[in-house]
Amino acid sequence: MASSVTPTPLLKDELDIVIPTIRNLDFLEMWRPFFQPYHLIIVQDGDPSKVIKVPEGFDYELYNRNDINKILGPKSSCISFKDSACRCFGYMVSKKKYIFTIDDDCFVAKDPSGNDINALEQHIKNLLSPSTPFFFNTLYDPYREGADFVRGYPFSLCEGVPTAVSHGLWLNIPDYDAPTQLVKPRERNTRFVDAVLTIPKGTLFPMCGMNLAFDRELIGPAMYFGLMGDGQPIGRYDDMWAGWCMKVICDHLGLGVKTGLPYIWHSKASNPFVNLKKEYKGIYWQEELIPFFQGATLPKECTTAQSCYKELSKQVKAKLGKVDDYFNKLADAMLTWIEAWDELNPSTQLPDGK
Amino acid sequence: MASSVTPTPLLKDELDIVIPTIRNLDFLEMWRPFFQPYHLIIVQDGDPSKVIKVPEGFDYELYNRNDINKILGPKSSCISFKDSACRCFGYMVSKKKYIFTIDDDCFVAKDPSGNDINALEQHIKNLLSPSTPFFFNTLYDPYREGADFVRGYPFSLCEGVPTAVSHGLWLNIPDYDAPTQLVKPRERNTRFVDAVLTIPKGTLFPMCGMNLAFDRELIGPAMYFGLMGDGQPIGRYDDMWAGWCMKVICDHLGLGVKTGLPYIWHSKASNPFVNLKKEYKGIYWQEELIPFFQGATLPKECTTAQSCYKELSKQVKAKLGKVDDYFNKLADAMLTWIEAWDELNPSTQLPDGK
Repeated sequence: MASSVTPTPLLKDELDIVIPTIRNLDFLEMWRPFFQPYHLIIVQDGDPSKVIKVPEGFDYELYNRNDINKILGPKSSCISFKDSACRCFGYMVSKKKYIFTIDDDCFVAKDPSGNDINALEQHIKNLLSPSTPFFFNTLYDPYREGADFVRGYPFSLCEGVPTAVSHGLWLNIPDYDAPTQLVKPRERNTRFVDAVLTIPKGTLFPMCGMNLAFDRELIGPAMYFGLMGDGQPIGRYDDMWAGWCMKVICDHLGLGVKTGLPYIWHSKASNPFVNLKKEYKGIYWQEELIPFFQGATLPKECTTAQSCYKELSKQVKAKLGKVDDYFNKLADAMLTWIEAWDELNPSTQLPDGK
Repeated sequence: MASSVTPTPLLKDELDIVIPTIRNLDFLEMWRPFFQPYHLIIVQDGDPSKVIKVPEGFDYELYNRNDINKILGPKSSCISFKDSACRCFGYMVSKKKYIFTIDDDCFVAKDPSGNDINALEQHIKNLLSPSTPFFFNTLYDPYREGADFVRGYPFSLCEGVPTAVSHGLWLNIPDYDAPTQLVKPRERNTRFVDAVLTIPKGTLFPMCGMNLAFDRELIGPAMYFGLMGDGQPIGRYDDMWAGWCMKVICDHLGLGVKTGLPYIWHSKASNPFVNLKKEYKGIYWQEELIPFFQGATLPKECTTAQSCYKELSKQVKAKLGKVDDYFNKLADAMLTWIEAWDELNPSTQLPDGK
């Protein structure tokens, strides 16, 4: 299965690959030609006594629950247990500028010509080229080869803004919610859409954590995956929560969010009955969350991801606390997350990161 | 070149094809299998004494400048001369619910499998399925076969809103402005992006009139292509102007605008030197127009395209009149256009169409 291509490892010393897992990481074999030059941060979920096997030749550090508790002390309460939300611990302990995170049931996809897709390389291209959140370009990403800004695009906006997030997609098993999984158990995503586009300013989207890259320096502190799984009333909204918070903050800070390429091959649908149990409160609460995030504005004094995130946690408590007490806990955890982030990343604490 | 496919003519009696032209319409030969069942409205630009040849077998009506003057009288001043903006006269005289408009240098494109693309059929599919302007779906149009709303999409928004506009794209010659044409004379668009997506609420885009369909009943009165060409200081902003006005009004009325498929094959780039002369004031003015349209809000009393458009013309006069006196003339022409529209379409004048 391994490709014979030897790609130039872009940003080799500036990017960590974060993988949450509960099993042996055999899926890395297929990614070897693309991932081996990079450093991996593996966040082991569930029973810490279980030994996770990592294929030979990969450079990695691995954290289980005991490690997380030891490193964060009482602040470890903000890191979810028995849920892939635990991956955000990896974002926090990384010392690199960029993060790529991928699920261990995601494999190398093929493009329509049958070539293996180097997902990481495409994410890096997305992150290193600007975004265009203020005006939609009908030929999609104007910075891609063979494309440009079309007639009628204001020249003053052609410089774009820095890209903070690159959201990749999935062939085969689409990322559906439990009700849609139940209704369409056989649906597979076979449509390869050869596009990258900026999600416009003011527009929210469902960010999936399966195949995601971001600039940790620009937006890392806003990439908190919330309280999910063990002891919490919901699951499967970890990446959604992070996506909504992150998008409001990117819009405020003038940063870009891209979606589209690269595709990975998502191999296995999770159990829709289990998912329904995890999701049902989220499906219900979400109807109040979306208007909240659509209406959220941040004061201009908030000029870092940290200060924006702290302000957002206040608004969550004030406006969503009445939806369910869970959001009061979540708002507190958001603050704990920032405290832990700043402790582990003292150099990223800018003067206004109060 | 004609395809052997015999498509089912969707909406045969509810759609007119509007073509602005200055030459014989040989390009219709290639479109015959797709267009022949429909009625054509040909708007002849330039010298009215010239005879435009239409291939045999097409059902059409043709209007030259003399016809326009006769039908509209003094109100004909709102219809541009020596510019493809004259096409909007065709929107006005149509008696159908839907319009598809196409330039006479646009041919049938092929999909990646080598099949002829029935552009009209795809536009109709776009128009007949809802739009999703309030939240971005990462698998693009959720109503297409093989796609759906992804996890995290609020269920309350899954019904969508009526689609007013379907904006198609171009393979081969991309729709670039004169400066980009000059810098990249050899660039061709070869990327077939297999996607249709809703332009989110609050986001503007450059609408190109080359390959465009819309619901005349929902948004026709806002599809005025402005004062361009003969006697006017600019050209090549006719479709842009219509697109910005239309988008602000669709956002206000809760209507959807889609872009993406279908592609047509755009055969010939226009002269970039001539284009630069037509465009240069537009390029300059545009920097003030975009903030104007981004900030424009309409009062809730405006519940029809007509009343929205009249209100917008007032705002154009009040806020853009100081940019250049041209915008005072344009604002007046916008009102004349609505008067002419209502005269020719008395049944679409709703009670509040004041």
